[in-house]
Amino acid sequence: MSLEQKINLYKDYRSKMQALGYASYIISWDSETEAPVGCFEERSKQIGVLSEMSYGLERSEEYIDAVKYLFENLENLDELLKIEIKKVYKDLMNSLKVPMEELVEYSILLSKSQNVWADAKVTNDYKKFAPLLKEIIEFNKRYVKYLETDELKGYNVLLDMYEEGMTKEKYDKFFNLLKAEIVPLVKKINAKNMNKNPLAGKLFDINKQKQFADYLMDVMCFDKSRGLIKESEHPFTSGYGTSDVRVTNHYYEDLLTSSIFSAIHELGHGTYEQQCDPNLDSTLLGGGTSMAIHESQSRFYENVVGRSYEFWITHYPKLKEIFKEELNDVTLEDFYRLVNNVECSLIRTEADELTYPLHVMVRYEIEKMIIEQDVNVDDLPTIWNQLYKEYLNIDVPSDKEGILQDVHWSGGSFGYFPTYALGSAYAAQMLNAMRKDLDFEKEIGKQNLKAINEWLKKHIHYYGATKNPTELLLISTNEEFDAKYFVEYLKNKFSKLYDL
Amino acid sequence: MSLEQKINLYKDYRSKMQALGYASYIISWDSETEAPVGCFEERSKQIGVLSEMSYGLERSEEYIDAVKYLFENLENLDELLKIEIKKVYKDLMNSLKVPMEELVEYSILLSKSQNVWADAKVTNDYKKFAPLLKEIIEFNKRYVKYLETDELKGYNVLLDMYEEGMTKEKYDKFFNLLKAEIVPLVKKINAKNMNKNPLAGKLFDINKQKQFADYLMDVMCFDKSRGLIKESEHPFTSGYGTSDVRVTNHYYEDLLTSSIFSAIHELGHGTYEQQCDPNLDSTLLGGGTSMAIHESQSRFYENVVGRSYEFWITHYPKLKEIFKEELNDVTLEDFYRLVNNVECSLIRTEADELTYPLHVMVRYEIEKMIIEQDVNVDDLPTIWNQLYKEYLNIDVPSDKEGILQDVHWSGGSFGYFPTYALGSAYAAQMLNAMRKDLDFEKEIGKQNLKAINEWLKKHIHYYGATKNPTELLLISTNEEFDAKYFVEYLKNKFSKLYDL
Repeated sequence: MSLEQKINLYKDYRSKMQALGYASYIISWDSETEAPVGCFEERSKQIGVLSEMSYGLERSEEYIDAVKYLFENLENLDELLKIEIKKVYKDLMNSLKVPMEELVEYSILLSKSQNVWADAKVTNDYKKFAPLLKEIIEFNKRYVKYLETDELKGYNVLLDMYEEGMTKEKYDKFFNLLKAEIVPLVKKINAKNMNKNPLAGKLFDINKQKQFADYLMDVMCFDKSRGLIKESEHPFTSGYGTSDVRVTNHYYEDLLTSSIFSAIHELGHGTYEQQCDPNLDSTLLGGGTSMAIHESQSRFYENVVGRSYEFWITHYPKLKEIFKEELNDVTLEDFYRLVNNVECSLIRTEADELTYPLHVMVRYEIEKMIIEQDVNVDDLPTIWNQLYKEYLNIDVPSDKEGILQDVHWSGGSFGYFPTYALGSAYAAQMLNAMRKDLDFEKEIGKQNLKAINEWLKKHIHYYGATKNPTELLLISTNEEFDAKYFVEYLKNKFSKLYDL
Repeated sequence: MSLEQKINLYKDYRSKMQALGYASYIISWDSETEAPVGCFEERSKQIGVLSEMSYGLERSEEYIDAVKYLFENLENLDELLKIEIKKVYKDLMNSLKVPMEELVEYSILLSKSQNVWADAKVTNDYKKFAPLLKEIIEFNKRYVKYLETDELKGYNVLLDMYEEGMTKEKYDKFFNLLKAEIVPLVKKINAKNMNKNPLAGKLFDINKQKQFADYLMDVMCFDKSRGLIKESEHPFTSGYGTSDVRVTNHYYEDLLTSSIFSAIHELGHGTYEQQCDPNLDSTLLGGGTSMAIHESQSRFYENVVGRSYEFWITHYPKLKEIFKEELNDVTLEDFYRLVNNVECSLIRTEADELTYPLHVMVRYEIEKMIIEQDVNVDDLPTIWNQLYKEYLNIDVPSDKEGILQDVHWSGGSFGYFPTYALGSAYAAQMLNAMRKDLDFEKEIGKQNLKAINEWLKKHIHYYGATKNPTELLLISTNEEFDAKYFVEYLKNKFSKLYDL
């Protein structure tokens, strides 16, 4: 078979796997946003068959041969295909290292554990979840063994999976800096924080909240002909290629700011997707390049832009117009302080910009122990609570507000959490670079974020996944990752806010 | 290979084709109800790949052999599989009779013609559509030739495809009766019809209309845990099995009755689907058995139940409560007359219960000429207009309100239209049978339609597609199809309404 024939064969398999992936995207979108509860049993059967089909394609000899052949002939491929085949080959070789029976068993375990975790959380009963968590951890340890190489060992195998190029050593350096600089800052603020919430006790009509979310789409120049906002239990972003990008939001009548910042956050993810090079849509190189780079974009819009004073100078009048009575006695200054209020709280997803990375640090420390030490699963709640006391000076009253709060571990995701904090740190470094090209405060004070979007498109979004995170950071900021920008940004912003 | 192995092989193929069908159901639901316009180009590529995969399965030698083998060993199969294999074998053999290249060409032609038709309709320019219609007709004539058997010739091939057992001879008898009895009745009513529309010029808030549609779901005992109502451009029913049944509605501010009767109609289709035997979900025998039987259920609920006086005695107070001001001066009597107003109008989908089958008759007559005679496509508008004059005594002022109004022919559907009228006739025959078991007027006057649903479930819905239309009519009404029930029902109802 000629090279061209092998390429066509590969592309034929790829298009089938993509079409099955497309189907699974739409089905899960439907599940999250509207499917009637009664259909899920039948649905899981159908999803099972579709993933089996996809798996069958990926494991077919013909496909594996084609990928191997193309990998051995990289120098003869065009630039894009070369990058794609490198990725595909790496993933495929990793996947082939794990015995199929174990993967099947693991996926059965995971589908069970999600329900068990949800039940344990509702009933605040960690003991229910512990045995499954133990099994999941054991699988992950074996999984790590299968995938270890001379360069990557232990937890680093998982860290690299979620963020190529990141290691325990680099994360340690990052989190140690936060420990040294941010933990004390939070303590100082906590000592003098007396802010009252001027929205407490008020109710905000949900249709009006939706109206403001719609307004935010225009502010962010989100292309509605290639995307939409809908509702779901938890906000998320989903889609396929640059022409179909969907975000969800969740509205609480008593929490106005929740839907506002969820909207900006998810639209940040969505803008990244919409601004990729559309030529990548048909390849495997479209969309965001990594978890942390994706999170850097959502956090950039949510925090750096969306929690800035200049942003609200422009948009608070609109919000006041919509909620005339409710915000009658709330000044711009009040509102700005409210959305930047620092509080040592229990729930990661509700944490403020400053304490958020400390929540992540707790999970990172525990994951290191889980994967690399023989920590007893029964001891994890105690460790969790100790770390919350140490970093956030807060007592955890129950496991459902503690170790059971997040879904990730029940889904087998270890190595994912630290990318959440890394994303914010990337964002600060990008801000520093962006400032060299444009007057940031002036731009976020404009009626829409066109100039900001353009900068991010040019330096980050357009590349899709053709560059890895390290390369992309070099391209966009001219240097390797350095956490100092994040620490400086936080110290600067919150010292001013709290007169320190 | 043993029989059991062949059965398993067949079921394995079936489950893959079903899963692909499931994916295509969800994708098209998404297309009709919310997908952003910009995604359709990418989407059609993905749909193309998925249907190719499905087609590849159906045309694989292994699958064809298995079906043939099972067909030759019917006597050794269990009852359900026997029925299923008979159906599958028939469809497969028919599909194999048509050269693949022609099918591919035809599907390209159809995807083009839908857009051309839509444009021709908007611009009222039949000439734009005529050349494609000619090609579609020519394909259908060739298609008929491929599929003809000793029993089925010409138009009958197509009629049987949409409604097994129906022939030109039977339809002719049916429509001739309508010509003899209903055409003169309509003329008589027209001569004395002076009803004014008491809702003309009023606007009805769309959220309130949705509230009433939601109320109707409860009246009809539609199980919301296994279904939902959403909006789309044109109302339709869709779903998968008994556990996921979805209907859509369209709301016009100035047309209150449109959304009410669309809701009842689509919920009628939906009730049929929800009330099938759930054991059929995993087979190919779930869902409605034929176009006309399905339409008989939607029309039964919409017209026989929904346009009855007793129904509105119970539910008009609720409607008045929702639209207090708007319906203030509209009595129950007024409303009942309004929803049964007979008018010789141009548009089939907006026609009343009495004239509706005459609209269908026009299309039936033309289809007979198209398939069995050498009628010139350019002459069709003239023929159309003549028949509207003859049956409905109305002049057609433009082709967009005439021959271009319906989508069906641009989609290659010939033989489908007559099932719309047949459905209403089935419904009247079923009503006659139902009356023997229950006090119909009393039941439709109750707060919900539980007893009606139960009767239809027991005599029709539960069978799914395990019985063909002829069998089902015998089971539910104890006799073969007889149009006299329909004619009697219409004459009786409308003579009273119009004091004839």
